Amino acid sequence: MMQLYIANKNYSSWSMRPWLVLKAFNIPFEEVMISFPKERNTGTFKQEILAVNPNGKVPALVNSDLLVWDSLAICEYLAEQYAEKNLWPLDSKLRARARCISTEMHSGFPNIRNLCGMNLRANLVEKGAELWQEFKDLQADVARIEQIFSERPYRDGFLCGEFSIADAFYAPVVTRLKTYALPVSEITQIYMQNVLNHFAVKEWIEDALAEDTWVNYLEPYQIQK
Amino acid sequence: MMQLYIANKNYSSWSMRPWLVLKAFNIPFEEVMISFPKERNTGTFKQEILAVNPNGKVPALVNSDLLVWDSLAICEYLAEQYAEKNLWPLDSKLRARARCISTEMHSGFPNIRNLCGMNLRANLVEKGAELWQEFKDLQADVARIEQIFSERPYRDGFLCGEFSIADAFYAPVVTRLKTYALPVSEITQIYMQNVLNHFAVKEWIEDALAEDTWVNYLEPYQIQK
Ligand SMILES: N[C@@H](CCC(=O)N[C@@H](CS)C(=O)NCC(=O)O)C(=O)O
Ligand SMILES: N[C@@H](CCC(=O)N[C@@H](CS)C(=O)NCC(=O)O)C(=O)O
Repeated sequence: MMQLYIANKNYSSWSMRPWLVLKAFNIPFEEVMISFPKERNTGTFKQEILAVNPNGKVPALVNSDLLVWDSLAICEYLAEQYAEKNLWPLDSKLRARARCISTEMHSGFPNIRNLCGMNLRANLVEKGAELWQEFKDLQADVARIEQIFSERPYRDGFLCGEFSIADAFYAPVVTRLKTYALPVSEITQIYMQNVLNHFAVKEWIEDALAEDTWVNYLEPYQIQK
Repeated sequence: MMQLYIANKNYSSWSMRPWLVLKAFNIPFEEVMISFPKERNTGTFKQEILAVNPNGKVPALVNSDLLVWDSLAICEYLAEQYAEKNLWPLDSKLRARARCISTEMHSGFPNIRNLCGMNLRANLVEKGAELWQEFKDLQADVARIEQIFSERPYRDGFLCGEFSIADAFYAPVVTRLKTYALPVSEITQIYMQNVLNHFAVKEWIEDALAEDTWVNYLEPYQIQK
């Protein structure tokens, strides 16, 4: 069986993406969690992941003697291996669009990513309001995200119709919009609900809430109780 | 015919990637150049590209009524449209690897990207030596790049055998290693020569050298003569 190496579900947005795809499409896999250290550059995280993946990052997928790393490359690999499951939309134009928005996420949106780190158990509503006031670039990232969300083919559907890799790519954005309560339109809120109600997303979040590891360098806005 | 929107060939590394793929695989297209402004946030660049691509960036590919943006999504789209040309390696393991290293480039290597911007007509050997001394993170990026380059299946070949999208993704890295004369191993130098001798790379560089646009905010290390 394939192994997916991930880090803590509360924090690791890149791990979440391929994990959601595997769950959502009912692909059997074994999850291997390597915990982030409490303080940056301490502990065995780096050593443990480097033993599997020379680029030293999660997520990484191991399928017997093949290593596939990077969230997007893992999803593309799975889309090929399970071609009959349509991990990307079947329609070629929607598929092209799904890839455009996924690659845009993969390399973009530095402001929301850096200012509003994923933190599923946190409630950072006040911090979110402050950040929103202070950073015009955060507002610009969210405006572009809302544009993408608003262009979905059906108001009640996912980004490119059925749930696809593209939705997995934006799921950690949806959770950030919620955690930091960033002000968004109704059409965005409908999409957020669709994502938050998806069984795979629910399962990931439940697992995250059951974790108790505190990673100091991923908690810029809270002090450990 | 498809149109590929790009920016100045001297500077625009993301434009270079899909352009090389189109040329290398002999896919007919029309090139549309939108010049960067001389000073940041001036001129009509943003307005012109936004009229085509709502994310406001080059490269963008237009195929009649379909817009495909982002270098990687464009390459994936072309790989599907021209399946018979094997833009990704034919062998499924090599193809997975080609995607891993391309996605790693797409989202990674911030130090070489930020410190050593692509600038094909420049000779920044002295600056490169300084940067190399000063920034350990630049050395770490190059070490990882050299590791990737050293793992190619044939010493005299490309990253995953024949020239593929992966080589197009690393071509602007090769030109940076050269422009800034960063110290690299012999096996890396052999790969660099392979890339620099590829007809598509040569054609892009020739075009770049024929340009005379000076973009001030992309010239942190030189003063216009
Ligand atoms: N582009 C990569 C990013 C992976 C990444 O940055 N992962 C983080 C965790 S979410 C990581 O492993 N950080 C540990 C480190 O860089 O030392 C992907 O899409 O998979
Ligand atoms: N992830 C994108 C990056 C594209 C990108 O950053 N393009 C630059 C030029 S090389 C650009 O258009 N910059 C103009 C701007 O951001 O205003 C891709 O792979 O295509």
